[in-house]
Amino acid sequence: MRAPATVSSLTEADLIARVRARLPPPPAWMIVGIGDDAAVVEPERNRLEVLSVDALVEGIHFDRAFTPPEAIGHRALAANLSDLAAMGADARLALLSLGLPETFPVADFDALIDGLAALAARHRLHVAGGNLTRSPGPLIVDVTVVGTVKRRRALLRGGARAGDELYVSGTIGAAAAGLQMLKASVSSVVEPCVSRYLYPEPRVRLGSILGRTRAATACMDLSDGLADAVRQVADASGVGAIIEAAELPIEPEARRWFESRGADPVHEAMVGGDDYELLVAVRPRSRGRLAAAQRHGGVALTRIGVCTAGGGVPGVIVRRNGGLEPMPRGYTHFR
Amino acid sequence: MRAPATVSSLTEADLIARVRARLPPPPAWMIVGIGDDAAVVEPERNRLEVLSVDALVEGIHFDRAFTPPEAIGHRALAANLSDLAAMGADARLALLSLGLPETFPVADFDALIDGLAALAARHRLHVAGGNLTRSPGPLIVDVTVVGTVKRRRALLRGGARAGDELYVSGTIGAAAAGLQMLKASVSSVVEPCVSRYLYPEPRVRLGSILGRTRAATACMDLSDGLADAVRQVADASGVGAIIEAAELPIEPEARRWFESRGADPVHEAMVGGDDYELLVAVRPRSRGRLAAAQRHGGVALTRIGVCTAGGGVPGVIVRRNGGLEPMPRGYTHFR
Repeated sequence: MRAPATVSSLTEADLIARVRARLPPPPAWMIVGIGDDAAVVEPERNRLEVLSVDALVEGIHFDRAFTPPEAIGHRALAANLSDLAAMGADARLALLSLGLPETFPVADFDALIDGLAALAARHRLHVAGGNLTRSPGPLIVDVTVVGTVKRRRALLRGGARAGDELYVSGTIGAAAAGLQMLKASVSSVVEPCVSRYLYPEPRVRLGSILGRTRAATACMDLSDGLADAVRQVADASGVGAIIEAAELPIEPEARRWFESRGADPVHEAMVGGDDYELLVAVRPRSRGRLAAAQRHGGVALTRIGVCTAGGGVPGVIVRRNGGLEPMPRGYTHFR
Repeated sequence: MRAPATVSSLTEADLIARVRARLPPPPAWMIVGIGDDAAVVEPERNRLEVLSVDALVEGIHFDRAFTPPEAIGHRALAANLSDLAAMGADARLALLSLGLPETFPVADFDALIDGLAALAARHRLHVAGGNLTRSPGPLIVDVTVVGTVKRRRALLRGGARAGDELYVSGTIGAAAAGLQMLKASVSSVVEPCVSRYLYPEPRVRLGSILGRTRAATACMDLSDGLADAVRQVADASGVGAIIEAAELPIEPEARRWFESRGADPVHEAMVGGDDYELLVAVRPRSRGRLAAAQRHGGVALTRIGVCTAGGGVPGVIVRRNGGLEPMPRGYTHFR
C-alpha cells in the first residue's frame, strides 16, 4: 500500500494550481486574481469597505482527529463571514493564507479548499489571492475577507442605549455541545449539534438586512460566546445589560446533552463559543423593522434581555429563578 | 529575580490596548479601526485596490534565537510592502494576525509591534485591525496589506516581451549572507548584510514610480530570490531570458562572505531569498523613463540581462565566462 501523497511532494506552483482548479472563474471586477505578487480589484462604487481577518490554528481552534478538512476550510471562512455579518456588510472577496505541515495529505489540502470554496460560492465571495507556506507543526488557516456596506449603514458594537432590547439569532449552545460530543466520540448520537460545530452558518443575510433597514443600534457575533458578546457590546456602548436566563434560545439537543453530563445548560450556552449567531441591540420602537429583518433574514430572533443605564456594578447581569447573578466570563484567547 | 511577563498573563483586550498604544491616530478615511468585529474604511477615489497577504512562521521564516522581535515585525510587513511595490501600488492599510506562544514575553510582543509600526509609519500605512490568538508552538505573524494603484498602471508579471531588458534594484545576496552570518554567530563582523536580512527596505517608492511612469513592462519582487523571480516573470510572460552573471550587482560584503566560505557568490546571490529588491523588465526605448524612475526612486537599477523569444529549452539561462548554464532553481516553499 502506498502512503498518501503529502503537500511536501508538490511544488508551490502545483498547490496554487490545485486551489485555482477548485474556484469558479473570477468576476470582471477582479482585474488580477491568484498568481501575481498581489491581487488587483475594482472597488465597488458608493460603498464603504469592511475588512476582517481571523485565524484557525490546529491545537487551539480545531483538532484534526475529529475535524474533517472540509470543515476546517468551512469554519475558517465562516468565522470571517460572521464578522462581516456583524457589521451589516455584504461579502466580496477573501485572501487565504495557509501554513501547511509537511505531512499534510494532498487529499486533505484539496478537501480544505473545497470546504472553503463551497461556503464562498454560497455567499458570492471570490478568493482573490493568498499565501502558502510550510508550518513546523500546526496547520494554520488565516483568512482575510473584504466586504462592503453603504455609508452610515455599518453596525457597530458601541451604538446601544439604555432601554434597547437585546436579541440573539438562531439557537445557542449547539456548537459547544457538538464539540464536546466530538471529543467524547459520541458524535453519531446527536447529529445536529456536531453539524453546527463543524459547519456553522454565518448570518450574513440577516446582518446585511439589519444594516440596510437600520433595525439595529448595535451588533456583534457570538464567535467567543454570548457572555463575551453581551459584555463587549455593553462596554463599547457604555451601558449595562440584564439577560433573562429563561428566554435564552438554547438548542434543545444541546440542553439535553449538557444535562446528561451534569452541566448547567444556561451557563454552558452562555460561555460556549463557535455559534456564530448575532447579538443585536434594538430600540423598542424598531420592533417592526426587526420583525421584517427576521422574515427576510431566514433565521429567528429571540429577545433575551435589555440594556440598562451603565455604571452599576456588576453592569452585566443574568436574571434567573428570580435572582440576579453576574454574567459569567466567556472564553478568552489568553488569560 | 522575577520571570518576565508573558502574553498569557494578559487578556486579549490588554494586548489589543498595547497594539493601539503603539500606533498613530487613525486617518479620517478609517471610519472604524481596531476594536470592532471588522474595520470600515472609505475607499480611495479613482484607484484600483491591490491586496496581498504574507505570513512569517517561526522555524520556517525566522529563528527567534537571532532575530530580535522588532525585526520580526519589520520583516513581516516588509514582505507585504514589497509585494505592493512589485505591483506599482502605494500602501494604504494593513491587518495584523498574530499567533502567540503562551510563553511569548510581553516585552517582545511590544517590540514586534514597534518594529512593524515604525516601518508602517515610514510608508504612511495604517493598521486597521487584526486578530490575536494563541499558538500551540511557533510564533505566527500573518499580515494582509491593501494598497492602491491607478487604472492601467499596475505592474504585472506577465507583460515582458522578447527584447525587453531586465534590471534589478539595489544589490543582491546581502540578506542571504546576513542570515548565514547570524547562523554562524559572527554577525558583528560584517554588519551591512545582517542589517539587510533583519531590516530589509521594500522598494515601495521605486515600484510606485515605475507604475506611474509606465517605465516597466513587468515587475516582481525578489522575496524568493533572483533565480525564482526571473523564471516566474519569464513563465508568466511567455519569454525566455539570458542573465549576465558578470553584471549582477552582488553586495560586495556578501561576495567576500560567500568566497570566505568556499561558496560561489554568483550562485548564492541568485538563489538567496529575502532581498526584497525588484526585478524589472523594460523596453529598450523606455530607458529614459527608467533613468528618471531610478533618480526619484532612491535606489540604483542595474541591467542584468534580456528577455528572449520563448519556447527554447532551457528558457532561462545564465551567461558566465563565455558559457551558458541553466538558471539554478531557487528556494521553494514545498518540494
